[in-house]
Amino acid sequence: MGLNVRRLLVGSPLETSQAVHERLSKVKALAVFSSDALSSVAYATEEMLLVLVLAGTGALALSWPIALAIATLLVIVATSYYQGIHAYPSGGGAYIISKENLGVMFGLVAGAALLIDYILTVAVSVSAGVAAITSAVPSLYDHRVALGILFIVLITWGNLRGVRESGTIFAIPTYLFIVSFLMMIGTGLARAMTGQIIRAPVRETIEPTHALTLFLILRAFSSGCTALTGIEAISNGVMAFKPPEARNASRTLAAMATLLVTMFLGITWLSRAYGIVPVEGETVVSQLARAIFGDGSPFYFLVQATTAFILILAANTSFNGFPRLASLMARDRFLPRQLTNLGDRLVFSNGILILGGMAAALLALFGGSTHALIPLYAVGVFLSFTLAQVGLVRHSLREREPGWRRNIIINGTGAVATGVVLLVIAITKFIHGAWIVIVLMPMLVRMFQAIHHHYQMVRRQLSIRTPDIPLPQPVRHHRVIVPISGVHRGTLKALHYARSLSDDVTAVMVDVEPEQTQRVREQWEELNCSVPLVVLPSPYRSVQGPLIRYIDQVSASLGKGDTLTIVLPEFVPKRSWHYLLHNQTALLLKATLLYRRTEHNEVIVDVPYYLYEG
Amino acid sequence: MGLNVRRLLVGSPLETSQAVHERLSKVKALAVFSSDALSSVAYATEEMLLVLVLAGTGALALSWPIALAIATLLVIVATSYYQGIHAYPSGGGAYIISKENLGVMFGLVAGAALLIDYILTVAVSVSAGVAAITSAVPSLYDHRVALGILFIVLITWGNLRGVRESGTIFAIPTYLFIVSFLMMIGTGLARAMTGQIIRAPVRETIEPTHALTLFLILRAFSSGCTALTGIEAISNGVMAFKPPEARNASRTLAAMATLLVTMFLGITWLSRAYGIVPVEGETVVSQLARAIFGDGSPFYFLVQATTAFILILAANTSFNGFPRLASLMARDRFLPRQLTNLGDRLVFSNGILILGGMAAALLALFGGSTHALIPLYAVGVFLSFTLAQVGLVRHSLREREPGWRRNIIINGTGAVATGVVLLVIAITKFIHGAWIVIVLMPMLVRMFQAIHHHYQMVRRQLSIRTPDIPLPQPVRHHRVIVPISGVHRGTLKALHYARSLSDDVTAVMVDVEPEQTQRVREQWEELNCSVPLVVLPSPYRSVQGPLIRYIDQVSASLGKGDTLTIVLPEFVPKRSWHYLLHNQTALLLKATLLYRRTEHNEVIVDVPYYLYEG
Repeated sequence: MGLNVRRLLVGSPLETSQAVHERLSKVKALAVFSSDALSSVAYATEEMLLVLVLAGTGALALSWPIALAIATLLVIVATSYYQGIHAYPSGGGAYIISKENLGVMFGLVAGAALLIDYILTVAVSVSAGVAAITSAVPSLYDHRVALGILFIVLITWGNLRGVRESGTIFAIPTYLFIVSFLMMIGTGLARAMTGQIIRAPVRETIEPTHALTLFLILRAFSSGCTALTGIEAISNGVMAFKPPEARNASRTLAAMATLLVTMFLGITWLSRAYGIVPVEGETVVSQLARAIFGDGSPFYFLVQATTAFILILAANTSFNGFPRLASLMARDRFLPRQLTNLGDRLVFSNGILILGGMAAALLALFGGSTHALIPLYAVGVFLSFTLAQVGLVRHSLREREPGWRRNIIINGTGAVATGVVLLVIAITKFIHGAWIVIVLMPMLVRMFQAIHHHYQMVRRQLSIRTPDIPLPQPVRHHRVIVPISGVHRGTLKALHYARSLSDDVTAVMVDVEPEQTQRVREQWEELNCSVPLVVLPSPYRSVQGPLIRYIDQVSASLGKGDTLTIVLPEFVPKRSWHYLLHNQTALLLKATLLYRRTEHNEVIVDVPYYLYEG
Repeated sequence: MGLNVRRLLVGSPLETSQAVHERLSKVKALAVFSSDALSSVAYATEEMLLVLVLAGTGALALSWPIALAIATLLVIVATSYYQGIHAYPSGGGAYIISKENLGVMFGLVAGAALLIDYILTVAVSVSAGVAAITSAVPSLYDHRVALGILFIVLITWGNLRGVRESGTIFAIPTYLFIVSFLMMIGTGLARAMTGQIIRAPVRETIEPTHALTLFLILRAFSSGCTALTGIEAISNGVMAFKPPEARNASRTLAAMATLLVTMFLGITWLSRAYGIVPVEGETVVSQLARAIFGDGSPFYFLVQATTAFILILAANTSFNGFPRLASLMARDRFLPRQLTNLGDRLVFSNGILILGGMAAALLALFGGSTHALIPLYAVGVFLSFTLAQVGLVRHSLREREPGWRRNIIINGTGAVATGVVLLVIAITKFIHGAWIVIVLMPMLVRMFQAIHHHYQMVRRQLSIRTPDIPLPQPVRHHRVIVPISGVHRGTLKALHYARSLSDDVTAVMVDVEPEQTQRVREQWEELNCSVPLVVLPSPYRSVQGPLIRYIDQVSASLGKGDTLTIVLPEFVPKRSWHYLLHNQTALLLKATLLYRRTEHNEVIVDVPYYLYEG
């Protein structure tokens, strides 16, 4: 029954041979790979304004120069990745680039940063998507956490079923989003040029609570840098493009960067022109769309709907990235090997479930607030940017392919720029949440190492070729113990099996209730079966204790090449609720025997006796 | 480590021989057995007034005649039990009396009623005890549920450690309670006689919301009948008295009944004389004590403290009664046999935990409100009263001991009185909660019967003497399968063991990853061990499915007297968190094999290989 429910939810299993790999045209690839990057314009401007407004509404004017700085950074990073596509056409992402060029340690740091990022991408995108919805439908605002978790559950479920990364499914909402945003920006600009600005309803001027220091400006810059998240996606997925892969990918990247810069600058400039002030309960984009298209306009709802949709798609991309990276790292033995299991729907189910669970927990913990999550977000992103750029520099230095000097300059500039920004973010966002990631990162790296160490140790100990551990030897003599609690058919079956192994069989029972013990002794006499019955005293009425002590004694007296076999009679009742009606003595004993780690040769045998009535 | 924590919490195990049975003097016995009965005066009057006040403050005058009716009923029931002590000196309670005299079915009904009652006694007494505390310290009122659960946890914990029913520990608070209540009643009466009544601060007169119908009066009577709860305790514990047991017990019962009537009538009369109106947040007893002794008087706090204390003690008595009854019913195979396990502290730990858990759940579910719980309470109490009295009548009819006619009259009167009251309660309290118990009771009885049936079926199927099922036969030939996932020391050990059983050994592996399979095939060749290796295809990448199908096939081809042994190599890592790093293939396979209920002779063998590093 459990299986049928599973089938209904997740679908029938797929054969390995059903795995298909779609090659993407540039148009489709832009849709598949850019939802994460483009969707960040939905919140980047707002996050910047939210910091500036601390120094009063007057400080909002600074958003334009800061946005220009961020756009410049964006162009530098995009150029660096553009170049990276040609230098490293196999893609691979920051983990592989760092590991191959900077060594395992940096690879692990990049891996930790990326894993954290994937989780944060889901939490941030979903909460921003929910904010787009609740801006348009304010009555849903109180349910934003539940709504966010619902979306995460749906995305997780879809991915467990194995949503194909079909370009067509992604293309429609992504292009709708691009069109609706460009339309909004175009209309807004046209109105501004012709002096037709309908100012947003005047909210009370916000008094400054902070001085407008350089630190605050840098903090606003750090918040705005979330516009860059997701920009690396194309360079990680070069192999998914139709040939010539590198060329198609780099052109798509250029198109995406252009769109991103246009949209980010457009939104920021218009926010200022239309006098938008960030408020609780409605996003900046929503306020802007309302101011440009007018309250209740269908275009307003189109902007909100496509924003919500692309943010959910952005979250969805992490559900491809996280499990794939986790399986890569698990294959390298830095994560549990269960993460490499391709489920029966041809997806890495464990990774999907872990990502969904973590993102949902994070969203709930931070009350579904994009603003609260943002300070955690950018550290990991820029750390992996920096490591990837440095890795590319190292790569060029080593490979010395044609044009390597130019490449080093491009990637070096990228590395320095992202490195500096990383420092700025780490410092200005430290107390607002970046510290969590900074503390978590070394712990994750330590965990990867511990896991790796464990797998190495296991391999060494299990390998037949390891010379310094003696190999297991054939069994010479069987010593058999049959623990019993009464004389019944289950016992009989176990005794028959025990005697087929050896003549050296002893039955043991623990004397918990003297009357019961006496009855068993008499029944044993009647059996007349040549196997001796040992009765163990138990002053504290424990069954396990005396049995284990007895087994330990026998075990210690074994000769070389002897094996002690413990044969457990176990009756299996008809229905699972019947288990509640029986002491789980056999089960507990099995667990205790197995996990007490004896040094002797011990084997545990389960002789089940099935009940068919009752 | 788990063991040490347990030891710290619950204490070191006790030897069976350490069980002692204290014989109680009358003075100590009154303290031990009467806390449940006497403590009910803390809430019985209030529950009565709470119903009457629905018909307005004027209707409160009716409390006195209703209290007189309840006192009469109390004398009848006490007399019947007084007589019962002599007729049934072995004690035993309603379950045993009903089962022995009225048949198993009525025994089960009584058992169900009693088990429900014990749980309700805990919930009601603790919530009333908490009400006594929060009346004196109103700031705790908002935390009443947490406080109640804390008390239940503490009582549960104390009983798991095995609190001795030492008369001395009980005597002090019980007698303090009696003294403080008698003092309050005496002072109150003296003041009333001398016209010194300080009326409680006038609260607004409560307008009637219900008409003062006969139904409402009967409902008030039903609520007041909770004063009778616990009156049967002495007759159940006759054997705990010093000899002559029956005589000492009956005298103690008489003393307890006298005290109970005095205190109940005293509180009710004074509530009327002092114009007490039941309110939310302060108990009637607290209002009365405040009116008699004055605000902030030490005597006021003494009354509240001793009330709270005796109510907690009353809850504690259920922690003896419930596990003992549950173990009796489990011994008769109407409840899971785990309930007969005497824990290592010589207490029925399972019963104690179930009672604590259920009572805490009930308390939380009903918001820690005594009033909400009361309608559930009295049905079970009076049902067991009635069954016990009828049982005693049947007993007298059968045994015809000297004076049996008189006994029948006494117990018959008791049976009729309690039976009528039972009906009144069931009808007047039905919609307020009695229906829950009335619905639950037949479900519980059905459960007892299902459990009994199961145990009988198991006994029949397991018994060697049952003639129509063939006995297990000795093993003639061993067919052995060794499922493997790779060639390592664990596999080697398992193979050695398998070959010591039989020459008919096959190793099996599932082809999930072609590369890994190829590697294993080559290593197998190198081993050169004469055991054939079968590789099973797995298009859906499942390990379990193909293996189980293969085993089923082999199993189906077994000859008569053949046994199929599945030898599972299992490596046991050094630390328990390492389990997270390995697929639990062996564990899952074991569970699947065991519970899929094959009809063939199959045995499962665990060959553990212990890792000592990593």
